[in-house]
Amino acid sequence: MSNLQLTQEGHLKHFITIEGLSKEILTNILDTAESFIGISQQQVKKVPLLRGKTIVNLFFENSTRTRTTFELAASRLSADVISIDIQTSATSKGESLLDTIRNLEAMHVDIFVVRHAISGAGHFIAQNTAPHISVINAGDGQHAHPTQAMLDMFTIRQHKHEFNTLKVGIIGDILHSRVVRSQIQALNTLGVEEIRVVAPKTLLPSHVEQLGVSVFNNIEESLDDLDVIIMVRLQKERMTSALLPSEREYFKCFGLTDERLKLAKADAIVMHPGPINRGVEIASSIADGPQSVILQQVSNGIAIRMAVMSLTLQNKEYAV
Amino acid sequence: MSNLQLTQEGHLKHFITIEGLSKEILTNILDTAESFIGISQQQVKKVPLLRGKTIVNLFFENSTRTRTTFELAASRLSADVISIDIQTSATSKGESLLDTIRNLEAMHVDIFVVRHAISGAGHFIAQNTAPHISVINAGDGQHAHPTQAMLDMFTIRQHKHEFNTLKVGIIGDILHSRVVRSQIQALNTLGVEEIRVVAPKTLLPSHVEQLGVSVFNNIEESLDDLDVIIMVRLQKERMTSALLPSEREYFKCFGLTDERLKLAKADAIVMHPGPINRGVEIASSIADGPQSVILQQVSNGIAIRMAVMSLTLQNKEYAV
Amino acid sequence: MSNLQLTQEGHLKHFITIEGLSKEILTNILDTAESFIGISQQQVKKVPLLRGKTIVNLFFENSTRTRTTFELAASRLSADVISIDIQTSATSKGESLLDTIRNLEAMHVDIFVVRHAISGAGHFIAQNTAPHISVINAGDGQHAHPTQAMLDMFTIRQHKHEFNTLKVGIIGDILHSRVVRSQIQALNTLGVEEIRVVAPKTLLPSHVEQLGVSVFNNIEESLDDLDVIIMVRLQKERMTSALLPSEREYFKCFGLTDERLKLAKADAIVMHPGPINRGVEIASSIADGPQSVILQQVSNGIAIRMAVMSLTLQNKEYAV
Repeated sequence: MSNLQLTQEGHLKHFITIEGLSKEILTNILDTAESFIGISQQQVKKVPLLRGKTIVNLFFENSTRTRTTFELAASRLSADVISIDIQTSATSKGESLLDTIRNLEAMHVDIFVVRHAISGAGHFIAQNTAPHISVINAGDGQHAHPTQAMLDMFTIRQHKHEFNTLKVGIIGDILHSRVVRSQIQALNTLGVEEIRVVAPKTLLPSHVEQLGVSVFNNIEESLDDLDVIIMVRLQKERMTSALLPSEREYFKCFGLTDERLKLAKADAIVMHPGPINRGVEIASSIADGPQSVILQQVSNGIAIRMAVMSLTLQNKEYAV
Repeated sequence: MSNLQLTQEGHLKHFITIEGLSKEILTNILDTAESFIGISQQQVKKVPLLRGKTIVNLFFENSTRTRTTFELAASRLSADVISIDIQTSATSKGESLLDTIRNLEAMHVDIFVVRHAISGAGHFIAQNTAPHISVINAGDGQHAHPTQAMLDMFTIRQHKHEFNTLKVGIIGDILHSRVVRSQIQALNTLGVEEIRVVAPKTLLPSHVEQLGVSVFNNIEESLDDLDVIIMVRLQKERMTSALLPSEREYFKCFGLTDERLKLAKADAIVMHPGPINRGVEIASSIADGPQSVILQQVSNGIAIRMAVMSLTLQNKEYAV
Repeated sequence: MSNLQLTQEGHLKHFITIEGLSKEILTNILDTAESFIGISQQQVKKVPLLRGKTIVNLFFENSTRTRTTFELAASRLSADVISIDIQTSATSKGESLLDTIRNLEAMHVDIFVVRHAISGAGHFIAQNTAPHISVINAGDGQHAHPTQAMLDMFTIRQHKHEFNTLKVGIIGDILHSRVVRSQIQALNTLGVEEIRVVAPKTLLPSHVEQLGVSVFNNIEESLDDLDVIIMVRLQKERMTSALLPSEREYFKCFGLTDERLKLAKADAIVMHPGPINRGVEIASSIADGPQSVILQQVSNGIAIRMAVMSLTLQNKEYAV
């Protein structure tokens, strides 16, 4: 997998998963994003870096929020963006995914931003696409969501500067979350001191400790001495599937409350990928409180996506 | 409400309702639109005024026509536009409206163009949004549709030059029309001599005369000596709700026919916000006839929206 | 029809059908497309030719693929594009097609790209639209799809250079295909030596020989000595309508297989408008094989659409 994402010179060509990427690559993404963070605060929020490039949002799974951040990132780099809702496209006329990809390649597009309900879809497309195209994974099944993980790393670095002394807790539905998989890989690669995952047993993958994390079933114990608290969105669909009791019960056992937050370090930051379920995984007072960096995550998401788009395209040109 | 829309210096910051805006503010919008009217007739229909600004169309209620005019106005000012269909967005994942707004703010957008089925939605968003964002109301419930009203004022001024000697008739479903509310406020602020509203009793608000209009139930009487005739679109849904007899019956009693039009001044102009129900509220011969300015209203709509977008953004910069 | 498409000086103003256009006009489109073919291969895939022009995709019939190629072509000419899905627009509020057109005209748009399930829709709109607007037909009923035909001509010329010595076979559902009608007209106007159509009798129009083609019911016989083989997409809907036996049966009788391909000239090219039904009208080995130019057709489609957009607009300016 790692080779697929890199050019022969070791530069980023696709961005499908954090797995197999070096600390240098991740740090380069963070540094590049840092150089873009100011653009969205200027009077003219636009640079001509990707003028005349064509970026295609291939969303097999609907997500207005994620699609919007990629569209904005592309616009601010002056690229042309086309968003294709695959449910209504030629695949419904019986065309295969590969034929759809071949056709878009022939239109000389530069980047596919792919979101798909099936794990591995981005990888499959990258494996099968023309050499002049970069693939960015915007979420595939329960596998990975690497731009979300990197905006989280960016936000952590903004507040904590160094990774190596940090204790990070990830609390919630670890089992079904593609974001968590990517976060754990990124945190380990960037060298944090400790990662704790906290969830009811029904929402933990088997052998989770092999991912390089310590496992807690009790939220109070897990919070002690944390620098960073990452809350995971609870998919309400899980409720109906007997994996969980009621929302109220979940909040009582695993919700982040003001009392619980006091157990972490006084300067701990609280993160959440959104959309938030207020009163389910997190109390409103914390989501809107001084330790929350949730909206900064959203802002940073634009810069991270600008960074990944420009890096993969830039490296492609080296590679050709 | 008036204070919310203005900066401390009294400049336009949001544009949610005509109510509370001075004659100077309204005249400034008309003058600014006048400076934009030529752009859509040039070979290159584009000025760089809002280059690098991000405008988000937040349409909770579908309207291709209104969305298109805002998109075109934004494009011709060189802004980046993102249109979000809220039915399919994160609110369907259980995110609250405020959380959606907070997220878009964090992406450093500049203007929300809001259309919503609930009266007051634009006001609510303006009250709760970050200081760097302007809100433009593209129609909220039965409350207001101020850009539509201002394009009507622009069209009237184009043809009649002064407002103070004008007699204006508004004919049709006064009760359910957000456009009419905004029109009456604008006409009164700009100082027309008389506003007449004409409708069956079931389609008149109670206490309508308190809006500063004279009330007619007979269309023939109301037309005498009019300079401007504004037809209101009949929502066909009303037919089924026992408020109205058949379409034919409505046309017989309140439709604008050639014979009736002769009762107004010889140079009276006929307006309609569209889409037209031919043969229901207006005869085709009038809609397409020499006194109709219906399509000029559409053209002027682009210039008015360009004016409101550029004024609110310009004033925001003063205000920050 | 021919007059409608041309200015008084005989230049292309609308592009609705191949019928009635001269060899000079078609050759001019091909030559103009040739000048654009390089743009999509540059680092910056964009020229400012149509900056500040407004192009409206009016798709009454959904086609992501065709819409995407027109959007890309417009973007690469720096035009502003608005795509309107007519099913969800004001026509659903009871507005007539003509009123929709009038409204868009009033917004000072420059080109309508029209796709419609009814034959003649593009013609009707061109007949009824304002003189400053050009209409491009992106497929109307079973009548015509002229940009698809011209990208096919472009692809043929790329490989065969001259038309006058060519033998071209068109194989498949001739009866229901708008593309085939346009292809036959273009091939005849450009002066190929012979056009053969090949189909089961149920999928041939009556009096098809009057179109200037020779008719074959046997695919093997038809392939002898062909330079160009154009496969027609089989609409799977036809299967259920008793016009055809099973897909397998169809492939057995009319599918292009490796054995059959050997009956044509050794350097014959194989074309298909896409999306392909692999194993129904064409074997995968041929679609992906060395004689297939299917993906080149897609690439050429961008250049052809850029050519048609810029030619019709350019000539409009002469005409005004």
